[in-house]
Amino acid sequence: MRFWSKYSRIMQQKNMPLCVGLDTAVEMLPTMLKERATTDAAITDALLEFNRAIIEATHDVTAAYKLNLAFYEQYGAAGWLAFEKTLAYVPDDCLIIADAKRGDIGNTSKAYAKAFFERYACDALTVAPYMGKDSVLPFLEYTDNMTFVLALTSNAGSADFQRLHASDFSGESSKEKSAQELYKHVIQSSLSWLPEPSARNCGFVVGATHPAELAAIRTMIPNEMLLIPGIGAQGGDLASTLRANNGAPCLINSSRAIIYASAGKDFAEAARKAAENFLNG
Amino acid sequence: MRFWSKYSRIMQQKNMPLCVGLDTAVEMLPTMLKERATTDAAITDALLEFNRAIIEATHDVTAAYKLNLAFYEQYGAAGWLAFEKTLAYVPDDCLIIADAKRGDIGNTSKAYAKAFFERYACDALTVAPYMGKDSVLPFLEYTDNMTFVLALTSNAGSADFQRLHASDFSGESSKEKSAQELYKHVIQSSLSWLPEPSARNCGFVVGATHPAELAAIRTMIPNEMLLIPGIGAQGGDLASTLRANNGAPCLINSSRAIIYASAGKDFAEAARKAAENFLNG
Repeated sequence: MRFWSKYSRIMQQKNMPLCVGLDTAVEMLPTMLKERATTDAAITDALLEFNRAIIEATHDVTAAYKLNLAFYEQYGAAGWLAFEKTLAYVPDDCLIIADAKRGDIGNTSKAYAKAFFERYACDALTVAPYMGKDSVLPFLEYTDNMTFVLALTSNAGSADFQRLHASDFSGESSKEKSAQELYKHVIQSSLSWLPEPSARNCGFVVGATHPAELAAIRTMIPNEMLLIPGIGAQGGDLASTLRANNGAPCLINSSRAIIYASAGKDFAEAARKAAENFLNG
Repeated sequence: MRFWSKYSRIMQQKNMPLCVGLDTAVEMLPTMLKERATTDAAITDALLEFNRAIIEATHDVTAAYKLNLAFYEQYGAAGWLAFEKTLAYVPDDCLIIADAKRGDIGNTSKAYAKAFFERYACDALTVAPYMGKDSVLPFLEYTDNMTFVLALTSNAGSADFQRLHASDFSGESSKEKSAQELYKHVIQSSLSWLPEPSARNCGFVVGATHPAELAAIRTMIPNEMLLIPGIGAQGGDLASTLRANNGAPCLINSSRAIIYASAGKDFAEAARKAAENFLNG
């Protein structure tokens, strides 16, 4: 499975599960780039120049880059162009995660899967599970790519539905699901949908803001891939996260603390230092 | 509230809750358009020419157009341009729904809300609820626009999580939620998050494939706006849907049966006829 072999190679080389989130927004760019972003074409260029400099400065100490589509879509087609062109700057020894949180009826999810896994050749994608099997399966069918299903997200709103205790009282005993938190149903169901379980191409998003639950999830799925956001600005703590994760395969995301480490001309160097120091905190 | 007044005006004029889904894909275009779509720029033009012809032929018998972003994103920036430019062809007497099913942590949802409600001036947007309050609230804060939260979707996968019986056993009695299907929690919670309840700018997506549940939902929320997809190819039936909806405010979506009514040169006329006959079946 291409994702896993790439991940193993990267971890051997770099021994660093850092995923840098390219949450690139015009208003956060260093002044000299921000000032130039006055037209659609100039916005594309400014976002791209920033991303290129960040990637060049950090790629040898970074396992993955995560591009959250919201940041690009806010600039419409100009942002999409910046997203597309950024992908070309990511070298082979880094994974690319499209953080799109997509999920729609079967045919539509198919169109999304094709876009991100074929057209853009992303290694991984985040997917929202609310619409169930036929919305997730089109992604899982790309067994060379990793599909990260949202399980227990890093935000406060994760308490609203993901933690509800849920069970299937439909009466069909074969389908009955025991009462447990919704995110555990999501994990179990998603894994049961894998078209080739041995490909292990279903991972999960679990926020660093929930270390106790992360540890519990690791007893459920000790070997599956996790994408762990929420370190830093969102309140997650790296040491507790690493302890809870217990050495299992993961990518730990940091966005703002790395890419906006400096707003000056030294932004790329500062990002490099922040990435280097990530594990040493 | 702008959405509601526009909706009322349209229903007075047209007495037609039809929402036409512009699920426009190159491989489904009439031959003469499909053949031209060989470069990115030509793809934009072909999608746009198709959408323009469909809108011109149907707008006076159509209440709303729904653009599912997946269909446009599959062509990258070229598709986004077609999406953006299509919006300009929708006349004032039709609502525009961006079917994006977005939902992310607070800051990111804010970027999405800004994109769809400000940059693109869409009247309404579909939103995925899995990430909870802070992922939905940034949309609800646009009280002039309608936010359609996914509740009980039209696809088979709606049974996987949306129908699980869920309750909050957290022990904090003030927060306790009674055991009921997850989609009912989603409806109740989303309504409780409205920053200005009187603006009534939270609607729901309920599939036409569940007429009994639609009727039950109408006893819960007799006056809220519903977006009802799933008629036609997905198996929903118009007569049962109208009966279950009990005359309450709604938009009923039809995509393929209208826009692909003919694959020949007469595609626009055929779409018009299909739209005219929608309510007469």
